[in-house]
Amino acid sequence: MKTLPPSLADVISQIKRCEARYGAQARHRLDNLTKPIGSLGRLEILAIQMFSIYSGNIPLPLHRGVYVFVADHGVAAEGVSAYPREVTAQMVRNFLSGGAAINVLARLHGAALTVIDVGVDAEFEGIPGLECAKVRRGSRNMRREPALSQGELAGALEVGIRMASRASENGEHLVAVGEMGIGNTTSASAITSLITKLPPGEVTGRGTGLDMAGKNRKLNIIRRSLKLHFDSAGATPEPLEILRCVGGLEIAAMTGFIIAAAAKQMAIVCDGFISTAAAAVAFTIAPEIQEYLFAGHCSDEPGHRHLLKYLGLTPILNLGMRLGEGTGAVLAMPVIESAVRVFTEMATFSSAGVSKADE
Amino acid sequence: MKTLPPSLADVISQIKRCEARYGAQARHRLDNLTKPIGSLGRLEILAIQMFSIYSGNIPLPLHRGVYVFVADHGVAAEGVSAYPREVTAQMVRNFLSGGAAINVLARLHGAALTVIDVGVDAEFEGIPGLECAKVRRGSRNMRREPALSQGELAGALEVGIRMASRASENGEHLVAVGEMGIGNTTSASAITSLITKLPPGEVTGRGTGLDMAGKNRKLNIIRRSLKLHFDSAGATPEPLEILRCVGGLEIAAMTGFIIAAAAKQMAIVCDGFISTAAAAVAFTIAPEIQEYLFAGHCSDEPGHRHLLKYLGLTPILNLGMRLGEGTGAVLAMPVIESAVRVFTEMATFSSAGVSKADE
Repeated sequence: MKTLPPSLADVISQIKRCEARYGAQARHRLDNLTKPIGSLGRLEILAIQMFSIYSGNIPLPLHRGVYVFVADHGVAAEGVSAYPREVTAQMVRNFLSGGAAINVLARLHGAALTVIDVGVDAEFEGIPGLECAKVRRGSRNMRREPALSQGELAGALEVGIRMASRASENGEHLVAVGEMGIGNTTSASAITSLITKLPPGEVTGRGTGLDMAGKNRKLNIIRRSLKLHFDSAGATPEPLEILRCVGGLEIAAMTGFIIAAAAKQMAIVCDGFISTAAAAVAFTIAPEIQEYLFAGHCSDEPGHRHLLKYLGLTPILNLGMRLGEGTGAVLAMPVIESAVRVFTEMATFSSAGVSKADE
Repeated sequence: MKTLPPSLADVISQIKRCEARYGAQARHRLDNLTKPIGSLGRLEILAIQMFSIYSGNIPLPLHRGVYVFVADHGVAAEGVSAYPREVTAQMVRNFLSGGAAINVLARLHGAALTVIDVGVDAEFEGIPGLECAKVRRGSRNMRREPALSQGELAGALEVGIRMASRASENGEHLVAVGEMGIGNTTSASAITSLITKLPPGEVTGRGTGLDMAGKNRKLNIIRRSLKLHFDSAGATPEPLEILRCVGGLEIAAMTGFIIAAAAKQMAIVCDGFISTAAAAVAFTIAPEIQEYLFAGHCSDEPGHRHLLKYLGLTPILNLGMRLGEGTGAVLAMPVIESAVRVFTEMATFSSAGVSKADE
């Protein structure tokens, strides 16, 4: 896939660079609010980024959305997860009946939840509340063949692009990206190894809870998959080729979503290891998305911190979470909104009649 | 002050130890929720603590309150702050007109804000919304004499105890402790040095923004104050004697508040360096309060991490904030509530029909 699918090329061309003057304006305002300079720490950095994304006009209230992309992975047949493959479909039903962690957090934090079936190996006809966008009933087993065909990859990217348009049409300003799919840390580790050029052993973890033998089996599958598809001595493969060979349908959809959400000038919060792997692919394709991206948290999966470093992102939360579903991203939303609110609602030294620091 | 003031001794006697069985019950429930075991990280630990504090019956919704104790410090005359002393009173007016950072965050996160004048060097008669509990117009200059008399110390502790009773009567379940007072990082550094047995140089920072010369002046004042009141070769002084000699009115009030809030079986979130110094004094007097205590965040002030270590607390947030006012504590409340909500509202594997991990 030497050329980008037309719809992806189209959204990339629409991404605007944030203008530096908004950052300078925001810094000036922050330094005049009734607080010691710099004393709100990361909140100040977040406010500057939000002010820049929204070109000096942050929409309030910040409408929040969370998009959970779900798919099965052929590589799950190799025994790379602590959970059986059926759990992907069972969790979709759990999302739809409101019992999963992301349901609870989305309700509490006022984020509209959309669950998208990009490729679950089950039929959900007639279940209300599910966004049906199945490209294929699960990706192929990357240990044996490329996970996706070119057409399937383009289709999955397209699903994400469509969801970002929907988010924009819904008037959402702050969107979280999450996922679910048994076996997807295996895919994310393979992607991470290729993108960061780190050996698989450094970016592979216990996923949903493998024991040491299970982790070694998973690592072995990743090594064999990489060897099957890529020349280890060669240059870093193209990002879409990485997605096609060792990615997954939900990961490709998140890549499309992130790029298209940046084009729609939305603030995007990525979640844990898998969604950040999608962000890293998106960043490799279109580095300008980085200005629109927030890292919700740092996952306990060892590969996540390497991806964050690659992306140049500092995570907002560090709570040792490793669940996915967008949970860490939604949990970071109150912090981002706090940053915006102090920035817009605090008094200045002059308006409040407070003396400034001795100069 | 070899004997505790009667009202303090009284509240200490009312503190109940949390029962271990609630921790075990909470762990059991967490391990049956539809998520990999342990995958919610710190949220699980927070849920266990909340379940234990509330003896297996967490009240929902969690009514939130934030108490900001304000006082002046005599030691401010030594030039230990980047801001002039009048800023304490100016900031009280800013709190009352809603323009400070804590106003914004308390509004956004639904915490009822109470501002308490324990000892500001100004008169606020007739200003609505202020809790007037002035013990003295500022503490004395600890560099020359003890900051407080025994009667003033007892009075300030009493203010905190009264406020905790008020919080309990208001039906609050989750209370944040904050402060404001020009010069109070100097006092908190002196307290921290005495309690942690670390030299002042390791626990003294730039406060609201001192330059290097200012910080050295502050450090010198702290060293001289400690030498004036305490025998450096002797045993660690009694905690109330520390408060009396180098403490402050708002710090003493927070100490009383924390102990009394634990006695009222409330979850208490301490904020930055100053409120955590008060918590450390409270913990030294009554170690059982620790079970009721949450560290909202880790401040950029160097002494804070040493206090957290002394208290055995892991901060919820790490955002490089150093403002005080309860801002970091209130910002942690959505995380604590998230922990409680996933704990109480998520489906279990059996209720949702989701397969468990391979055993």
